[in-house]
Amino acid sequence: MAPPPAISFDTSPSQYKHWRLAIDGPVATLAMDVREDAGLSSDYRLKLNSYDLGVDIELADAVQRLRFEHPEVHSVVITSAKDRVFCAGANIMMLRGSNHGWKVNFCKFTNETRLAIEDASRHSGLKFLAALNGICAGGGYELALACDEIFLVDDGNSAVSLPEAPLLGVLPGTGGLTRLVDKRRVRRDLADFFSTLVEGIKGKRAVAWRLVDAVHPTSQFNDAVRRRASELAAASDRPPSGPGIVLSALEPTVTESAITYSAVALTMNRERRTAELIVHAPTDPQPTRPDGMLEAGDRFWALRAFRELDDALLRLRINEPEIGTIVVRTEGDCERVLSVDRALTEHREHWLVREILHLMKRTLKRFDLTSRTFFALIEPGSAFAGSLFELALAADRSYMLDDADGVNVIQLSGLNGGFLPTSNGLSRLQLRYLAEPNRPAELLQRQGPFSAREAGEAGLVTFVPDDIDWDDEVRLAVEARAAFSPDVLTGLEANLRFAGPETMETKIFGRLTAWQNWIFQRPNAVGEHGALKSYGEQGRPDFDWKRT
Amino acid sequence: MAPPPAISFDTSPSQYKHWRLAIDGPVATLAMDVREDAGLSSDYRLKLNSYDLGVDIELADAVQRLRFEHPEVHSVVITSAKDRVFCAGANIMMLRGSNHGWKVNFCKFTNETRLAIEDASRHSGLKFLAALNGICAGGGYELALACDEIFLVDDGNSAVSLPEAPLLGVLPGTGGLTRLVDKRRVRRDLADFFSTLVEGIKGKRAVAWRLVDAVHPTSQFNDAVRRRASELAAASDRPPSGPGIVLSALEPTVTESAITYSAVALTMNRERRTAELIVHAPTDPQPTRPDGMLEAGDRFWALRAFRELDDALLRLRINEPEIGTIVVRTEGDCERVLSVDRALTEHREHWLVREILHLMKRTLKRFDLTSRTFFALIEPGSAFAGSLFELALAADRSYMLDDADGVNVIQLSGLNGGFLPTSNGLSRLQLRYLAEPNRPAELLQRQGPFSAREAGEAGLVTFVPDDIDWDDEVRLAVEARAAFSPDVLTGLEANLRFAGPETMETKIFGRLTAWQNWIFQRPNAVGEHGALKSYGEQGRPDFDWKRT
Repeated sequence: MAPPPAISFDTSPSQYKHWRLAIDGPVATLAMDVREDAGLSSDYRLKLNSYDLGVDIELADAVQRLRFEHPEVHSVVITSAKDRVFCAGANIMMLRGSNHGWKVNFCKFTNETRLAIEDASRHSGLKFLAALNGICAGGGYELALACDEIFLVDDGNSAVSLPEAPLLGVLPGTGGLTRLVDKRRVRRDLADFFSTLVEGIKGKRAVAWRLVDAVHPTSQFNDAVRRRASELAAASDRPPSGPGIVLSALEPTVTESAITYSAVALTMNRERRTAELIVHAPTDPQPTRPDGMLEAGDRFWALRAFRELDDALLRLRINEPEIGTIVVRTEGDCERVLSVDRALTEHREHWLVREILHLMKRTLKRFDLTSRTFFALIEPGSAFAGSLFELALAADRSYMLDDADGVNVIQLSGLNGGFLPTSNGLSRLQLRYLAEPNRPAELLQRQGPFSAREAGEAGLVTFVPDDIDWDDEVRLAVEARAAFSPDVLTGLEANLRFAGPETMETKIFGRLTAWQNWIFQRPNAVGEHGALKSYGEQGRPDFDWKRT
Repeated sequence: MAPPPAISFDTSPSQYKHWRLAIDGPVATLAMDVREDAGLSSDYRLKLNSYDLGVDIELADAVQRLRFEHPEVHSVVITSAKDRVFCAGANIMMLRGSNHGWKVNFCKFTNETRLAIEDASRHSGLKFLAALNGICAGGGYELALACDEIFLVDDGNSAVSLPEAPLLGVLPGTGGLTRLVDKRRVRRDLADFFSTLVEGIKGKRAVAWRLVDAVHPTSQFNDAVRRRASELAAASDRPPSGPGIVLSALEPTVTESAITYSAVALTMNRERRTAELIVHAPTDPQPTRPDGMLEAGDRFWALRAFRELDDALLRLRINEPEIGTIVVRTEGDCERVLSVDRALTEHREHWLVREILHLMKRTLKRFDLTSRTFFALIEPGSAFAGSLFELALAADRSYMLDDADGVNVIQLSGLNGGFLPTSNGLSRLQLRYLAEPNRPAELLQRQGPFSAREAGEAGLVTFVPDDIDWDDEVRLAVEARAAFSPDVLTGLEANLRFAGPETMETKIFGRLTAWQNWIFQRPNAVGEHGALKSYGEQGRPDFDWKRT
């Protein structure tokens, strides 16, 4: 089964096929109601609220829209519109039929969506209550685990379960194992037992083992959910009322070789397996106060450029698997970027500014987690300042032209000082200067730009070739990179990009995902007689019993 | 190429084929001098001080013996006895010809050996200086990275390098990437560049990039090394003089189905793919003071039992790949274990006691890192007390018989309170009670044993079946576990066992190793035209260019 050729991540509630979004004052309800016949491929049917990437794209969209479009919503109930079924998890036939890269990218996106739920809770005061009104298996339970609290109906039948290991020979790969022991702090031996049970655990035992927060009989379930959702809403620091701003469709111009947005362009060179990613600084003056930003809405550069960047990264991952090396450039007026950064820093307490800053942060995390090489090229006319300089810091390397006349500069802003942290909680400057912990503060003190030589001496960029060397050095670096084994680069970057502390988030993408990807390669899962491949067929899988 | 059938980990300096150990007062020199023709298999030649498992077994032995047999040694110079070659890393032809499991176990052992070097430095005052007197590539540089300091000869030729990615399409998998950015805090972009260079980096640039601590011209190199080794020795808190104790060969009785030591026995049931691991409490009174322990030497139960356990785990891993589920039992008198624990706790400042405690700790870490399922069975007559109760805490689950008369008990000792931490720095009790951080201290306060019911209520054991259920419940649990996909269990356990914080050590086994194992499965590395498989042959490897 070939994955559908070009996936778009643009959607909106009126287009949803699989979710129903209802808003009742401060409480929103997001009810899963997956259309069996509306999967991304016709090779499988999405039975029992099982999901594929298309279902998750809608979920991600809904969470994003609630943050921007509905500041008056303070809590979200995630439940199912189907009777006695919450969610059966990722669709098994979809997984069975997908190639390795699709499985990996599917899991990466669903992980990012669940982390976006937790990000909304932690940073944006939007609390999530999973109301499990029926069976809740695998990815369904992993979605519940991403919520702040989990209520399970006590109907004698509904249970939570992670049956991936016993049924499919793969891990619950959407953060489930990590959240069990690290977020919900389920005892590791109980987690071990639970993760090997097909039938799952229900009722009081599910509460005692910390798998859910409460169980309620069917007759009282909806009331209990409503009550708790209101309580969660009451504690929120979101604005008491709207309006929010509307996130309109991005509608890039897509050609055979380029995706062009208003402030972002991604141009592919398929023959060389490279691409150029350009982000443009604002070309017009931008609002500097929240009322102006509210009025500008999604046309405000900071929001628009980073939404576009996010979309470009997603399309790159899913639709362009062979483009391995991306040259990152910026263009425009540094001062305009710095002016936006100053406005965001100053008004960071405003709900919309807060949302924009966290969206910028999540987009940069998506960049960190994109398994492609990024080389930032800093040339005269570029705008690697403040928030856009984060792209150079996030890149695997940066090359800055040491021009004779010192026109080529970079500059820091307050946003580089911790507003846009990586998954491990550090700013990209802190991550860069692990060996010199005082350096970020020193560099941030400096008002004004850094020339290439200054940036090189300060360690803010990797290499500073002069005019004579520039063309060859950059060309050879890109060519050499594009000739490497794609797999070893994925492993290399996944290790070098995540120095320093680990968090639940980095554990999900490092430890959990890396093991899952290994299992996704193993004949015991995906071989002809592997557990995932033979699921639903006669007979038991045929395992190679060697433990590795 | 099949791995040699049964590997023994017993060796001693007089038997070394590949290392020369010389002791000069407080400074030992461990010089690599690999015999090309003395690899574990005759399918490859160990050229240029490249190594296989046999070479690393000797290194691990040497480090262990220095700790116990030579307390008067305070620093170790790790160098090469060959001219202009320090070490070329793991033997590529060995890797090329090895099956997946062998590669994984080889890397796990070499990682543990390097971590044992760091453990000796951090906890035992034994400092290591890597004296790179010639080319130092791949695993050779990873060995250097495990040392406290790295000196590189400045001869215009000798460089440090990690050429695995460009040459072989695999990661430097023995902690190299992690130590670069997390231990030596090399900037991530410089680490990226360095890790893609075949030729490596030498001279002043190697120092500026923090890859080595110093470079010295050939004429001054030996003097500089000697001087620095003496300085490192002078700062040690090890005893000024010996004698140490001798670690004699373990010499277990090995039959077709069992390995039997003095205090440990491992019995295989190959048909069921299970084994029973028994550890016996002391049968005789044990010394309670350091002088008695010194006199008992390696016959002292604490040292003997844990050395035997360590050896059993290593043989299990390497020689018994299909034994996936291990039932862990203990036998004997709890009070004798507790008495040993008390003596160790009381005299923990004594050098020998310190060494014994750290060996116990390392053995238990080896247990945590063994990719087999462990179920502890706690029955009357068992000795799950104090240090031996760590085995139940380390197990994936524990089953404790709820006997009618309350004879079956477990007990804690001071050693459970942080003397035997896991790789992430927590005690196993802390790891167990992440949700109740005060619980470990409360439980440790209790003097006296816990009955099955008490242990169950306190959460110290997983399940407490009664006499009626015991046989069936345990049998079914073992049978069910043995029927799982071995790979999914490896992934499951690697996630559930390591809740809580991550350390450089856990990152090496989690993040780095998991990605490396994934790469070790990928056709781009090990397929017919993969980079590792085709190394040394005509033509370039043939890559699938899809990035994953």
